[in-house]
Amino acid sequence: MTPMARPTRGFSEQEYADRTSRAQAHMAQAGWAGLLLTTEAELRYFSGFHTLFWQSPTRPWFLFVPAVGKPVAIIPEIGADLMRRTWLDDIRTWSAPAPEDDGISLMTELLAPMARAGDVIGLPKGHETHLRMPLGDYERLMDGLRGLRIADGTPLMRGLRMVKSEAEIEKIAHICAIGSRSFARVPEIAREGQPLEDLFRAFRREALAQGADDVPYLVGGADAGGYHDVISPPSDRPLARGDILMLDTGATWDGYFCDFDRNFAIGAADDASRRAYDVLWRATEAGIAAARPGATARDLFEAMQAVIREIDDVGGDVGRLGHGLGMQLTEWPSHAAWDRTELTENMVLTLEPSLSYGAGRIMVHEENIVLRASGAELLTERAARDLPII
Amino acid sequence: MTPMARPTRGFSEQEYADRTSRAQAHMAQAGWAGLLLTTEAELRYFSGFHTLFWQSPTRPWFLFVPAVGKPVAIIPEIGADLMRRTWLDDIRTWSAPAPEDDGISLMTELLAPMARAGDVIGLPKGHETHLRMPLGDYERLMDGLRGLRIADGTPLMRGLRMVKSEAEIEKIAHICAIGSRSFARVPEIAREGQPLEDLFRAFRREALAQGADDVPYLVGGADAGGYHDVISPPSDRPLARGDILMLDTGATWDGYFCDFDRNFAIGAADDASRRAYDVLWRATEAGIAAARPGATARDLFEAMQAVIREIDDVGGDVGRLGHGLGMQLTEWPSHAAWDRTELTENMVLTLEPSLSYGAGRIMVHEENIVLRASGAELLTERAARDLPII
Repeated sequence: MTPMARPTRGFSEQEYADRTSRAQAHMAQAGWAGLLLTTEAELRYFSGFHTLFWQSPTRPWFLFVPAVGKPVAIIPEIGADLMRRTWLDDIRTWSAPAPEDDGISLMTELLAPMARAGDVIGLPKGHETHLRMPLGDYERLMDGLRGLRIADGTPLMRGLRMVKSEAEIEKIAHICAIGSRSFARVPEIAREGQPLEDLFRAFRREALAQGADDVPYLVGGADAGGYHDVISPPSDRPLARGDILMLDTGATWDGYFCDFDRNFAIGAADDASRRAYDVLWRATEAGIAAARPGATARDLFEAMQAVIREIDDVGGDVGRLGHGLGMQLTEWPSHAAWDRTELTENMVLTLEPSLSYGAGRIMVHEENIVLRASGAELLTERAARDLPII
Repeated sequence: MTPMARPTRGFSEQEYADRTSRAQAHMAQAGWAGLLLTTEAELRYFSGFHTLFWQSPTRPWFLFVPAVGKPVAIIPEIGADLMRRTWLDDIRTWSAPAPEDDGISLMTELLAPMARAGDVIGLPKGHETHLRMPLGDYERLMDGLRGLRIADGTPLMRGLRMVKSEAEIEKIAHICAIGSRSFARVPEIAREGQPLEDLFRAFRREALAQGADDVPYLVGGADAGGYHDVISPPSDRPLARGDILMLDTGATWDGYFCDFDRNFAIGAADDASRRAYDVLWRATEAGIAAARPGATARDLFEAMQAVIREIDDVGGDVGRLGHGLGMQLTEWPSHAAWDRTELTENMVLTLEPSLSYGAGRIMVHEENIVLRASGAELLTERAARDLPII
């Protein structure tokens, strides 16, 4: 992969206007009066409001996308200055936190006319969503808005966010390239005798040096002849000859994630691990070949699973073999037997085959792709054909 | 602050047993049959289950603390191996994601006897909480459990988590010391002409080098004669002589946060900024002096506000002048006029006075303290008496 010029930060106002128009077209079809949003990714998607302040669980934030016109922000005063730099015009604030009335009066004022009219509004309440406000406040808000009908906004948001714009794809490609360069340096920064947590720290530093804004996700494992789970924080166990090491990272650039992993053997690789690696490498190839517009997420699952079945007919316990990728580490769809989502151009996906082998060992592989008319285009530098030995 | 020996990772089984017993004592008083939890911090608090996998919004996770006995985990199969390493015995899993039944059958099976008995269970639904599962799934679960009564579990969780154990305080002290050492290096890593985003990256790398596991939160600002907001991501604007620079970080060690900031002037400091700094430094002193068991969060607010009033009678727009600190960047209580929480020994708190000055400038200061019988003990190395010039 050749180094790319760094993309521009943020998006044009047109991009936000387009996203809003598309949402409004869906809403017009469904007869909705608006769409109520409460999470970081949802607010950022329509407004461009981008801050790490969401780390604090204290204050709720609201965005209302009306049937016509720009979204309305109803947010804590601490965010007013930053929100005024977005394309929005209607920004209503309160001095938060205020447990007695954290935006409830402002939200009631906005929604009361719709309640009186018996309108329907959308609110994401389906798979992979949650409501980011106190449940008690939501119940109180709804009690004061009798007549308002709530529909599940998940299909709308899912439909919009699964398909990326070129500007979004550029950002994801950029962070994937940063991730690839970081993994390429692992043979230099990992060494026998190094506690795994020190390698994690070194890898994070490397990803930042390569240009990542942040590394919100880094998990992995290392153990003799293979690792046992894929979501652990690092231990202080030193890397030892014969270990299979896996690092899986979600690094970000301008609010977009990469999500992929790499495997390494320390000093020497056992046959079972080399075989598992070979199977997963070929399963990924099968996934790449199957990934084209018109196929389904289930097709990708089947294509990868057919190869995995060579040595593991149970499958891993991760529940799926990849997923969507973007503003969040994992997004819709899921490469799983139950997901018949049709794949379309400009979806960004992970291919993540996994298997169990030996005595409780598991192995995972992962690449990131963007779907083009002609098929899959790799955003990550393809993993080595054979299990690399450090 | 002298370098400390690194604390042990994790907690003893006794610590989890104690937390559970304390929750159960409250539940017995309230007549609850259990406590249902869905968020990262809540699950980790009672089980020790610690993973960055929560970055993925795809799968719900549940912990049920019964009236008697150990907590029960109802979690995606991908977390089973890691959960089995905790002190829990009863771990029930399903192959997730499974949008048609993401834990709902397992939860129904667990709670149905309580529903039949008309029992009350606690669920955090108050200030600074949220429900981390799809709202539609929650509604579906409750529809199938008619008779079950839900009480707000927030006061219970708040009461437990506000007061830290010595082992928790050790971890927070450790990350605060790492933060202090990192800020001490800013004069060496920041320079005129450096884009702010490069400084952010360098600061993150420094914090990792100093021993932080991660830097989930880093915000700040820099502008001529003062900054305008305190939650921005960094721009690529180069630091210029006369800028006031602020960095505010929430770094973590073993799942516990520090949360404090430091101000610097680039090349030279204007009088208004030096005066604002002086007022905030003294407001922090007033907060430290007021922080002792028996005082209230409101008292801390009043003590700091009295000093701030010297130059700003509006107050900042951040809504409070500090908060609790621990597994989350911000926790209860809030140093605000509305919060009459009585402070007790072993609370860990931030003191965070802020003010507006000049034309839309704001300034913030922040220190982290632990409350002892004798009063406040600083966990952070106290900010310089005068605005440091780089």
